[in-house]
Amino acid sequence: MDAAVAAERLAALMAERVDHRFKGLPPDAEGRTLADLAAERRDLFTGGFTTPLLTLAAEHLTHNLGLMETYTARHGLAFAPHGKTTMAPQLFHRQIAHGAWGITLAVPHQVRVARYFGVQRVFLANELVDPAALRSIAADLAADSDYDFVCYVDSPHGVALMDAALSGAARPIDVVVELAAGEGARTGVRTEAECVAVADAVAATRTLRLVGVAGYEGEVPRADPGRVHTWLRRLTALAVEFDKAGRFADADRIVVSAGGSAWFDAVAEEFTRMPELSVPVLKLLRSGAYVTHDDGHYRGLTPFTRVPQEGALQPALRLWTQVVSRPSPEQAFVNAGKRDVGYDLGLPTALVVHRDGEERTATGITVTALSDQHTWLRTTPEADLRVGDWLGLGLSHPCTTFDKWPLIPVTEADGTVVDYVRTFF
Amino acid sequence: MDAAVAAERLAALMAERVDHRFKGLPPDAEGRTLADLAAERRDLFTGGFTTPLLTLAAEHLTHNLGLMETYTARHGLAFAPHGKTTMAPQLFHRQIAHGAWGITLAVPHQVRVARYFGVQRVFLANELVDPAALRSIAADLAADSDYDFVCYVDSPHGVALMDAALSGAARPIDVVVELAAGEGARTGVRTEAECVAVADAVAATRTLRLVGVAGYEGEVPRADPGRVHTWLRRLTALAVEFDKAGRFADADRIVVSAGGSAWFDAVAEEFTRMPELSVPVLKLLRSGAYVTHDDGHYRGLTPFTRVPQEGALQPALRLWTQVVSRPSPEQAFVNAGKRDVGYDLGLPTALVVHRDGEERTATGITVTALSDQHTWLRTTPEADLRVGDWLGLGLSHPCTTFDKWPLIPVTEADGTVVDYVRTFF
Repeated sequence: MDAAVAAERLAALMAERVDHRFKGLPPDAEGRTLADLAAERRDLFTGGFTTPLLTLAAEHLTHNLGLMETYTARHGLAFAPHGKTTMAPQLFHRQIAHGAWGITLAVPHQVRVARYFGVQRVFLANELVDPAALRSIAADLAADSDYDFVCYVDSPHGVALMDAALSGAARPIDVVVELAAGEGARTGVRTEAECVAVADAVAATRTLRLVGVAGYEGEVPRADPGRVHTWLRRLTALAVEFDKAGRFADADRIVVSAGGSAWFDAVAEEFTRMPELSVPVLKLLRSGAYVTHDDGHYRGLTPFTRVPQEGALQPALRLWTQVVSRPSPEQAFVNAGKRDVGYDLGLPTALVVHRDGEERTATGITVTALSDQHTWLRTTPEADLRVGDWLGLGLSHPCTTFDKWPLIPVTEADGTVVDYVRTFF
Repeated sequence: MDAAVAAERLAALMAERVDHRFKGLPPDAEGRTLADLAAERRDLFTGGFTTPLLTLAAEHLTHNLGLMETYTARHGLAFAPHGKTTMAPQLFHRQIAHGAWGITLAVPHQVRVARYFGVQRVFLANELVDPAALRSIAADLAADSDYDFVCYVDSPHGVALMDAALSGAARPIDVVVELAAGEGARTGVRTEAECVAVADAVAATRTLRLVGVAGYEGEVPRADPGRVHTWLRRLTALAVEFDKAGRFADADRIVVSAGGSAWFDAVAEEFTRMPELSVPVLKLLRSGAYVTHDDGHYRGLTPFTRVPQEGALQPALRLWTQVVSRPSPEQAFVNAGKRDVGYDLGLPTALVVHRDGEERTATGITVTALSDQHTWLRTTPEADLRVGDWLGLGLSHPCTTFDKWPLIPVTEADGTVVDYVRTFF
């Protein structure tokens, strides 16, 4: 796609008007464009925004984008951050501007979003056997010679379905064999012998081209550094074997890909150890959660705790809520719930209380449960919390929080709202 | 709001064009209006729709709308189904067409959606203390004399915040005192004595008018019929006491409201037993999940299991997924995950397998876990499941499934897609 068209479409996001579609925007801004509202630089707390409201910290976002750019460059990795985390085309383009090779995605709808906004390199980390989706991608590849699309294959039957759907396609689709992370793990071929069978099936088609191997170390059963490194060595050895066997003979680059947000240090180490192959190797890391990091699950899991000398990610998401009930000294309720925040990998945590322009640590306040539209808080005697206070929550698992917010205000450290990020779930 | 404007806005939803914003719609329909696509009456399985895709069963939806219309009429209840379940203005209007008094909502953003689409009676089942949101509602009330809005109050401090924000408003806001469902329960005033204090606080303002009492029996701790009836009798007794004390002297109707989707039979019984009060009583039931029911949580909880002679709800939501990996005889994976379906009150269940135009029961297939974009299936030897098959999943908890789908195709029993429902979360 022409870069100017993509730029126009991105810009059009900020020409959207404030209305009922977007949670938490100031009622008195109804009908204004997001660009105009951003230019007003309103204060989050006094500018008419209503809770619940998810915000993105501008400085932390920029920091995280820069940190992973540095990290991947230092370790000789190409980067296709998983776009399913945010599904925010504006962030996709910032990731690409920060050196990313392209964007990883999980399902055809996500590819459609990325392509509409001009993402030119897509790594679909799934086998794709749906005929309508395959034909749509084939048409897109035929229409745009610069479009680089790679997806998984993980069974001869899947290859046969793809081949049937793609019959007559102008360009073959580049595929990588997915090696499962172990017995009982998620998708992917269980054994190297079966990988050979899948590669043979690909070689027998004219519609698919084998360009590499991939997998997801995040699903290694009972993962620890030893098991993760062992699996990564299986993956890189498979690439070496396939290359020696001439299985990438049609490829002008070999793709070797792994890497979520918990083990990219191990991926960097093992990918660095790979010998040279017959053609250049795209060592593709796919971590997605880094872009906002979190105050829970990924704060605990991030590899930067093992390599602190390489930097630290900063949590960029915060959910602002308001106390609507304080029925007893031990209980309080804010007006956000399962509709507003992820809860699959830990509950949100109470970080700060904002009252009359003053912000302080949320001492003595514990999130104990979520209803659809309420958060249950347990309070100790030292908690100073009243109906009307705003409570800022830290989150666990960005993916399942982003998908609850079609539009997210971006704030500077002092609370000035400077931008808006649109998501498409 | 003028009914013609509301009708235009609803119609405009079907004038929206198929594009990247909506998951699962046929790629070859890009740019067509939803109205045109509906008129094509495409087949769900062969019409180019891609998975994952949530669908609404047209007949079951209509059945459920009719059943609760009959039920509430039979028991002398007014009905304000909780709109947070679907956040679908098209369904709000169908609910109103089926006799509903209005729509219940939880947060100001939801009120904004309902009002944009012309809902004239809104019951906000929360205390609302946000000044920007209150001023916006006050302006709306001032501009539309037919707009009927009621919300909770549950503390004197909350009343003071509301009063301050509403200073100078043209019309007072109607409020009901929320009685908590018990000690340690969710929001609401814990004791009758405290309810009196809140009512006194309301009476001391010019900006609020006390019109009733309300609560949510779904949060009665260790709920059983005895405890739920006991609490409902407290609620109706509070209404009687307040009325006797002249606390509704300014009201032209008294609102007494309760009722989620688990105990509306008890609500019907206790509301029927209420004596006459000084002005007509709006006995307002608020159940929301009934409209689609489910194949899990609410299938087990619905009061119709206790009163089968009054009818039965039918599950109207189904999530269509596709098998993308079958790595072993015991495992399979479909391409839907936490992004697509609720999992807070039970995992989805495998209902049917669709292959080459044939549909059969999903024998031997159990959902064991969800990843962000995958469902983990355990399969027994009798499971006949291949990569490429479509698997139809039944859901548990409609609320947390609706919020993952901005647009939902409506299908007839034979798989013809006849309509589209838009949601705003």
